Amino acid sequence: MKALGNWPRRALLAASFTVLLAMPTFAEQAPVPTSPVSEFTLGNGMQVVVVPDHRSPIVTHMVWYKVGSADEPPGKSGIAHFFEHLMFKATGNHAAGELDKAVADIGGNDNAFTSYDYTAFHETVPPQALSQMMAFEAARMRNLVLSDEVVATERDVVLEERRMRIDNDPQAQLDEAVLATLFMNQPYRIPVIGWMQEMQQLNRVDAKAFYDRYYAPNNAVLIVAGDVEAEAVRKLAEESFGKIPRGPDLPPRIRPKEPQKTTRRTVTLSDARVSVPSFSMQWVVPSYNTAKPGEAEAIDLLGEILGGGTRSRLYQELIVKKGIAASVNAGFQGRALDDSVFAVYATPRGEAKLADVEAAVGAEIERIARDGISAEELDRAKARYVRSMIFARDRQDSMANIYGSTLTTGGTVTDINEWPDRVRKVTAEEVKAAAARYLVLDRVVTGYLLPKTQAEN
Amino acid sequence: MKALGNWPRRALLAASFTVLLAMPTFAEQAPVPTSPVSEFTLGNGMQVVVVPDHRSPIVTHMVWYKVGSADEPPGKSGIAHFFEHLMFKATGNHAAGELDKAVADIGGNDNAFTSYDYTAFHETVPPQALSQMMAFEAARMRNLVLSDEVVATERDVVLEERRMRIDNDPQAQLDEAVLATLFMNQPYRIPVIGWMQEMQQLNRVDAKAFYDRYYAPNNAVLIVAGDVEAEAVRKLAEESFGKIPRGPDLPPRIRPKEPQKTTRRTVTLSDARVSVPSFSMQWVVPSYNTAKPGEAEAIDLLGEILGGGTRSRLYQELIVKKGIAASVNAGFQGRALDDSVFAVYATPRGEAKLADVEAAVGAEIERIARDGISAEELDRAKARYVRSMIFARDRQDSMANIYGSTLTTGGTVTDINEWPDRVRKVTAEEVKAAAARYLVLDRVVTGYLLPKTQAEN
Repeated sequence: MKALGNWPRRALLAASFTVLLAMPTFAEQAPVPTSPVSEFTLGNGMQVVVVPDHRSPIVTHMVWYKVGSADEPPGKSGIAHFFEHLMFKATGNHAAGELDKAVADIGGNDNAFTSYDYTAFHETVPPQALSQMMAFEAARMRNLVLSDEVVATERDVVLEERRMRIDNDPQAQLDEAVLATLFMNQPYRIPVIGWMQEMQQLNRVDAKAFYDRYYAPNNAVLIVAGDVEAEAVRKLAEESFGKIPRGPDLPPRIRPKEPQKTTRRTVTLSDARVSVPSFSMQWVVPSYNTAKPGEAEAIDLLGEILGGGTRSRLYQELIVKKGIAASVNAGFQGRALDDSVFAVYATPRGEAKLADVEAAVGAEIERIARDGISAEELDRAKARYVRSMIFARDRQDSMANIYGSTLTTGGTVTDINEWPDRVRKVTAEEVKAAAARYLVLDRVVTGYLLPKTQAEN
Repeated sequence: MKALGNWPRRALLAASFTVLLAMPTFAEQAPVPTSPVSEFTLGNGMQVVVVPDHRSPIVTHMVWYKVGSADEPPGKSGIAHFFEHLMFKATGNHAAGELDKAVADIGGNDNAFTSYDYTAFHETVPPQALSQMMAFEAARMRNLVLSDEVVATERDVVLEERRMRIDNDPQAQLDEAVLATLFMNQPYRIPVIGWMQEMQQLNRVDAKAFYDRYYAPNNAVLIVAGDVEAEAVRKLAEESFGKIPRGPDLPPRIRPKEPQKTTRRTVTLSDARVSVPSFSMQWVVPSYNTAKPGEAEAIDLLGEILGGGTRSRLYQELIVKKGIAASVNAGFQGRALDDSVFAVYATPRGEAKLADVEAAVGAEIERIARDGISAEELDRAKARYVRSMIFARDRQDSMANIYGSTLTTGGTVTDINEWPDRVRKVTAEEVKAAAARYLVLDRVVTGYLLPKTQAEN
């Protein structure tokens, strides 16, 4: 039971894409750092990005590995997230729990998360503790002790995590089934936490193979944001991470792609624990890494115009005018190595019929695809992004996250710098074209979460 | 265009499971050979089964490889079927087309097919030609000439085959999408012919790697049925196949398994070319290789009782009594290495509503799951199987197919011999239990094929 105490700390980022939609991801897309960002590479291939932020004596130290659940071998789902857990165990240099204790002793915090495309470990501490944090991260990058016992114990922890977070939660179950349906071929169809029957089989041999392949300086990105200067970070990084030998050269991360879709699909979960019905409509769309220039920016603005805030089309039409929805939102998870997801979520209000809400969402989407958007709508959507940049600027950890998630999904620091300009250049025609091309109702996957009684119809 | 002339001869077995349902697979499950079947293994590991059948001076010669589309590496879908095509090209010993010509000259026939679990090549010829056929098959087992040009030309052929057989056919498109939806994790979700975007990338390096891994005597089963004796076959096989060196030892064929399902799903294709709507209801169920003892036999009988012929439940209820269906059938594709598919297909009659037909199918399934079946129904279903054995006995090629498909999907000659007895032992309770356990309406995938206008509702 003691081991179980750990589990909520090892967060599972993006158990589904829908989780991300609920987070302020848009607000995190475009930081404006307070002084120039530095970027360099250590001799062993480890990328380093330093984002100075001198407003308070804090640093955010993150090690991002370019490996996530979508890189797992067939039949080994869950190993990436499982390995994230194992990284908190003993190393040749430190006992298990020593890092957590050291961070707690200085009043900082540390955690980790796993997604489809990356796994990240981070600490927020005073600048004086930076070299200590690097020593901890460097130790577990290559010096982890993987015994059968450690592996078996932690496997029970992640199995319990799956039971609690997915199997006990009808919405999470549905989200998992929707993604497994939406993606016919791409590995994003497999849940980050893994399929139960495969998680149960994970063992020390799998863990060791995964560690030796992916946990190496040339497959990692170090992000340090906060009250430090680049030269100091470089010196510390060379003394710690720099001493780790380069790992194997990995092939390009080329994964199976989606086939062209020709059908409309639904996924329905009926559960006695559901009191209010809801639904989502989801499509596969290009990500920032797979889109043509400007296309992902247009899809981001489309999400904003459709479902971003109270002045969005769906809010105005479904909640204000028709009064048939209690909530509605739309969004795009653009930071992904492969094609990603555009989703609309809605909940009927009172006695309103789910089918009517769904039809109203479809009508708004078709209206944009057919008639386009106004200049005023476009300007307002862009303006919201500008505001979001200002908010992001205020959060050191969100700034660090943007750099980490971009650099591990095919992007560059330049992409981040130029992103605001690229958003400003999007035309109304491009937003219309994105809606027409990608949000096709004949190829949507709709997920329904229904009370058990409603399902009996 | 000359190369295209070949394509209809290289049949794609089971472009989807549904194709198999339309074939007399039940009738082929249990041959009663005319004299004892012999089984032996050559020194290089090649399995040989001889099924004597002296009624006419013909032999069916088949080489089955234990590799199908479900064994393909991620991102290389279509390579198994593509390779089947390449096997008709030149070898170090023979020019391309020489085998076809030799067979035609003696009035025989030859062909090949690829499925999820196996790839088979076969000739039907007079017994005197057997040694010549073995020479041809032995030559292409290890002596194929794979040039970039041959590969590029034949790739165009399979791409055209995909366009004609799948992309031009709404039913085939739907079947493909239903399987890609039904299977969330198992490789049967990937079409045998491959996804277009992956087929386009197949190249000589992929083909060579596939050939060297899978086309070897220790991964093949030779089936000879017809007017021959085992000792003669052994001698000929040793002189031809026996001289080929053993290939690499392959790991067990362990593939990703399905997670537990929690949702009900639909797949809808609306197409202007569809004039009559239809639907199917599909579930993942155990195969003969994955089921507990007796369970697959019970599922086979369940298919028979539900939808086998004019005395089946669905026929009587939907066509005879209610008059709402024009056609209905049910069945189970039991011969598979991994969990397989149980499907019900139906077409409404006249003005009958698709939803009413679907509800009536659901009601019959629930009735069996709740109330079970009568002794008379069970006996009648078993009797139909006995009759089917007598029919199968009359067809040399179907006998050979049963041995080949069984031995390449985890079964043995003993399994085939004992199959009729195992069917006879199935109880009414076991059939009821199978319906209750596997045909759960809350976990069904329903595919709808609709005329374009009907979809606008």
